[in-house]
Amino acid sequence: MTYCVALKLNAGLVFLSDSRTNAGLDQISTFRKMIVYERADDRFMVLLSAGNLSISQSVREILQVEQLREDEDSEPITIWNAKSMFDAARVLGAAVRRVYDRDAASLRQSGVEFNVSMIFGGQIKGEGMRLFQVYSAGNFIEATPETPYFQIGESKYGKPVLDRVITPDTPLDEAAKCALVSMDSTLKSNLSVGLPLDLVVYGVDDFRTDKVVCIDDQNPYFRMLHGSWGQKLREVFDSIEDPQWTGGPTELPLMVAASRGKPLRKITNPDERLI
Amino acid sequence: MTYCVALKLNAGLVFLSDSRTNAGLDQISTFRKMIVYERADDRFMVLLSAGNLSISQSVREILQVEQLREDEDSEPITIWNAKSMFDAARVLGAAVRRVYDRDAASLRQSGVEFNVSMIFGGQIKGEGMRLFQVYSAGNFIEATPETPYFQIGESKYGKPVLDRVITPDTPLDEAAKCALVSMDSTLKSNLSVGLPLDLVVYGVDDFRTDKVVCIDDQNPYFRMLHGSWGQKLREVFDSIEDPQWTGGPTELPLMVAASRGKPLRKITNPDERLI
Repeated sequence: MTYCVALKLNAGLVFLSDSRTNAGLDQISTFRKMIVYERADDRFMVLLSAGNLSISQSVREILQVEQLREDEDSEPITIWNAKSMFDAARVLGAAVRRVYDRDAASLRQSGVEFNVSMIFGGQIKGEGMRLFQVYSAGNFIEATPETPYFQIGESKYGKPVLDRVITPDTPLDEAAKCALVSMDSTLKSNLSVGLPLDLVVYGVDDFRTDKVVCIDDQNPYFRMLHGSWGQKLREVFDSIEDPQWTGGPTELPLMVAASRGKPLRKITNPDERLI
Repeated sequence: MTYCVALKLNAGLVFLSDSRTNAGLDQISTFRKMIVYERADDRFMVLLSAGNLSISQSVREILQVEQLREDEDSEPITIWNAKSMFDAARVLGAAVRRVYDRDAASLRQSGVEFNVSMIFGGQIKGEGMRLFQVYSAGNFIEATPETPYFQIGESKYGKPVLDRVITPDTPLDEAAKCALVSMDSTLKSNLSVGLPLDLVVYGVDDFRTDKVVCIDDQNPYFRMLHGSWGQKLREVFDSIEDPQWTGGPTELPLMVAASRGKPLRKITNPDERLI
């Protein structure tokens, strides 16, 4: 599996991916799931991919040369000359469809579904930052202020902290921290997601970034975060009082007469009706 | 969907279930997923169920009368006379198989998979507490000290906190709190899991319990926990320093020369090779 997450904030974009792939539990390898396209002062784009590795590698290869032709006379559109991220995402969708046309039938013959999902975001000079999630069919959706992040792969473990923290106003470094916590929770609960991580942070209107880092188990910040988060989470857990049932000095009993739902009736013998 | 979790501690058992079922997003109802079987001073058992509601309801109905016959001469085994939880779980497995025999072919004709999963735990006089997870095929596995909990349904959102907190030594009320936090994270991130909750806590060798409660959105303890957990999680998050990149006064930089993994190379033009 894989876990990738990308956040679109007012201040910029954050991309984070793990690097574990597995074809069964006994075939585990390290493959980077992120690729950065940058032409300074013109465009900055990042692609994250999950799903079948042969498909996503083919898409990445083809994306470099894929061309969209609107009609005979117009210039073909590539990710390198697209005037908008929307058009660049269409080129990516076309690359996905090209791989589908080449490989899907043979994969199906081997009982393998055509399964790939991607996150593609960035900024092209002349418009704002944009962030897309691209599906196996080459179609895509765009992040909005209400839903400022996308996840692909093993996404559930790391979703609660994103839901609690991320808004479009979240500062970039705080968003990067949140993505790393989200990844840490996923690493904790799912073996198929693993280090090293690739993290890229992009500031709005920069059209380039130096904030590209590969995080392994020796990374001082990630080690601190991993330890602190686990320990402090435990302290928070301990700081919340245990439930009291009835009576006692508590003001927050678990059992209250006012509850609208009735406690479950107990079934006490074989002849009893359940309802 | 559904989220149910059961924990087996040295001190007793904790069972927690939500009550939302959905057949599509426009058909959402409340059904309790927990059933308590109790014959005081003899046996205490709890069944949690997820999956197709028609299957789990049928299993529950049949379980009341299901009999396992070892051979012609021996007394048939039911959940009410089984001498061990293992035998009671076998009766439950037989009930699942009976529903399969009745319904699976017709379900398949309608394109519906025979999908049910259950957690079944408790204690029968003469042996210790036991906790089982029962699958659609009627087979089952048992919780051990290394894996003292089972989840069914929408289990991923709530797994990290269980992994961080639960050991066999966890006290009962703390374990109940942990189950409620796990449920709270799931409620936060998944619409198909909903209040009210059913919570049952059983103390070892009691063979009965009064700790049976239905928790709705007015429950004082759950309201406190929901609010505190969200707020304190946020405080913990804020208390961890944001990542620093390079330079600056930090001692925990995100970028370090010593990292074994190379940062991603950037692709800067259409002719560049990816590898």
